[in-house]
Amino acid sequence: MISEKMIKLTQSNSVIRAMFEEGNRLAAIHGRENVYDFSLGNPNIPSPPAVGKAIIDIVTTEDSVSIHGYMSNAGYPAVRADIAKSLNKRFDTAFTESNIIMSVGAAGGLNVVLKTLLNPGDEVIVISPFFVEYGNYVSNFDGKLVIIPASRFDFQPDAQTLRAAITAKTKAIIINSPNNPTGVVYTEDTIKQISAVLEEKSRENGSPIYIISDEPYRELAYDGVEVPYITKYYKNTLICYSWSKSLSLPGQRIGYIVVPSEIHDYELIFDAASIATRILGYVNAPALIQRVVAKCLDEQTDIAAYDKNRKLLYDGLKGFGFDPIYPQGAFYMWLKIPCDDKEFVEAAKKYNILLVPGAAFTCPGYARIAYCVAKKTIENALPAFEKLAKDLGL
Amino acid sequence: MISEKMIKLTQSNSVIRAMFEEGNRLAAIHGRENVYDFSLGNPNIPSPPAVGKAIIDIVTTEDSVSIHGYMSNAGYPAVRADIAKSLNKRFDTAFTESNIIMSVGAAGGLNVVLKTLLNPGDEVIVISPFFVEYGNYVSNFDGKLVIIPASRFDFQPDAQTLRAAITAKTKAIIINSPNNPTGVVYTEDTIKQISAVLEEKSRENGSPIYIISDEPYRELAYDGVEVPYITKYYKNTLICYSWSKSLSLPGQRIGYIVVPSEIHDYELIFDAASIATRILGYVNAPALIQRVVAKCLDEQTDIAAYDKNRKLLYDGLKGFGFDPIYPQGAFYMWLKIPCDDKEFVEAAKKYNILLVPGAAFTCPGYARIAYCVAKKTIENALPAFEKLAKDLGL
Repeated sequence: MISEKMIKLTQSNSVIRAMFEEGNRLAAIHGRENVYDFSLGNPNIPSPPAVGKAIIDIVTTEDSVSIHGYMSNAGYPAVRADIAKSLNKRFDTAFTESNIIMSVGAAGGLNVVLKTLLNPGDEVIVISPFFVEYGNYVSNFDGKLVIIPASRFDFQPDAQTLRAAITAKTKAIIINSPNNPTGVVYTEDTIKQISAVLEEKSRENGSPIYIISDEPYRELAYDGVEVPYITKYYKNTLICYSWSKSLSLPGQRIGYIVVPSEIHDYELIFDAASIATRILGYVNAPALIQRVVAKCLDEQTDIAAYDKNRKLLYDGLKGFGFDPIYPQGAFYMWLKIPCDDKEFVEAAKKYNILLVPGAAFTCPGYARIAYCVAKKTIENALPAFEKLAKDLGL
Repeated sequence: MISEKMIKLTQSNSVIRAMFEEGNRLAAIHGRENVYDFSLGNPNIPSPPAVGKAIIDIVTTEDSVSIHGYMSNAGYPAVRADIAKSLNKRFDTAFTESNIIMSVGAAGGLNVVLKTLLNPGDEVIVISPFFVEYGNYVSNFDGKLVIIPASRFDFQPDAQTLRAAITAKTKAIIINSPNNPTGVVYTEDTIKQISAVLEEKSRENGSPIYIISDEPYRELAYDGVEVPYITKYYKNTLICYSWSKSLSLPGQRIGYIVVPSEIHDYELIFDAASIATRILGYVNAPALIQRVVAKCLDEQTDIAAYDKNRKLLYDGLKGFGFDPIYPQGAFYMWLKIPCDDKEFVEAAKKYNILLVPGAAFTCPGYARIAYCVAKKTIENALPAFEKLAKDLGL
């Protein structure tokens, strides 16, 4: 009766809801502080004080109509110019406001980009494990999701696997580094190899294959690891950035799309993406918070706190005999499961530990631990993980 | 190469852009204050002071993670409960938080509702003249737009015309009262007649035909005219509200969807719409501004100022021999064009008057005047309208 696609989604969504409800059930029995909920990527670290200060500055000093009114669908030109300058300074790029479209977070940006690029049946490649919403976003525009596995050794994408998956219908590949759920940062070598394959195959196809780079975790990289800036390696790149994690603003829905001038069909893509922003009902990214982030371009959330969580959790789990990947970025740890998936998640629940099984990222045999939680939660959870390890005979 | 739908939209969009550019061209020659730009529905009246106060209160007193973090895709439960209570008080309804989904403005709400309801090929009826984006929203989900004319006498929709347009594929009708572009408020009698036809045809079809009520102008009604609350007349109604006009917050993208408990498939629709909010990339309505509107439910922008504009403009135009419809709501005046459309718009431009021709609302022979401008703009424009009337021999 209603949309058949949506009926299917309400059914599959019940898995996620079941996890929420399980968390609430356990919290009701044991108390919220005794449930170790590592299931959600909701930053627990406050925004830097500059964010609140910027909001108050703007509201107290600027004109109401200008703060709250419509602007160009692509966002305030001055905000976009400031972002371009900031990127140029950091990444040695040459962007202007004409390369930036403000978006409703990275999720909004991805939808705008896919709306702009896809014709029905176009194929979009994603690298497993991946953020499961990519499938829904591609399906919104009747694209076909093509899943290729990352290397099970280091979870970098493999260029030869990519080459084999490309067809005449391939329109784009979505990459995400630092990666959700693995915490892996794609190396410069990986990016170069992917770019070479895409260039070769674009020539063969006679039409460009775009990289869509989903970058909500760009700022969350540890140990000084470099996160290559993709437009410098491959011109047909669209970047979808978000401040959800870097400024701890996930609820405010603010990010941007980079459309480099070198991209094939630049003018058409920039115009189409601006119109897609309008007709998908975003109209524009929320006005006030656009100005706020422009005043906070040199700010970031307390990443050192995530880093401490990362080390504490990794050392603990290794010590108990678990086999996690040492994360270089984001706030996720990717754990090889030492037994059957279902058995593992159930065993963890017995100790009030909530994780997302790898199957939710199309990658069974693993689990994701979101460590964007209070340090105390990890400290309290470690004895529970130790018991779990013993139960599993590690 | 890129989306064919989007290529077409970039081409048709150039008409709107041409209008903007014409405005800028004229402003460069004559000065911005000497161009009478009545083309845009961008409120010129500031938000009530309570809005700024609420923002500052929230930012200075509440916890950063709770202000800026994720919440349920449907929005903060407490905000939704406050909105439900406010509606119940005003309209004698019986809503709870389970009937409210926060949305990215009414445009976001409409997209969520259409995503929830439509299967490819489903028909959605709109009443001409109508806000042209409806066509794009319906097309986003591969629905088919069916256009029926409002009465050319009073621009109320006609129940018999509606009946004749309904087929077995009809899924919904979009109504918009107070209306953009006509300024007409649908009477209780109109709503009752529409409801009767929809009930009859839903029975005949064996499946409900939904009313989607787009209500960004609900609060903008003059002379004490009542705007009937649609769920009280027809249970299969979804309301898409926005504070863009009532609190002058169009840039902030904040509104809500009402899903009444009586609606056919209530649970499925509520769940599907919450998921649609997520997968269309909104994720949730912007967090901070959700809390702000909840603190401003008894506030509204200075509607008396629009009312003054309305009377000033109407009396002036009537005096010069023009034939406008006296608007009961919104901030638009709908003018019967006394000559060829193109000739009229060109003649108006000669006097630096910018209007949107009715063809942009699929209704040639008329023009829309957006009077959400400074009173001074109308005062200064009236002599120009007088000259225009003389040129046209009125």
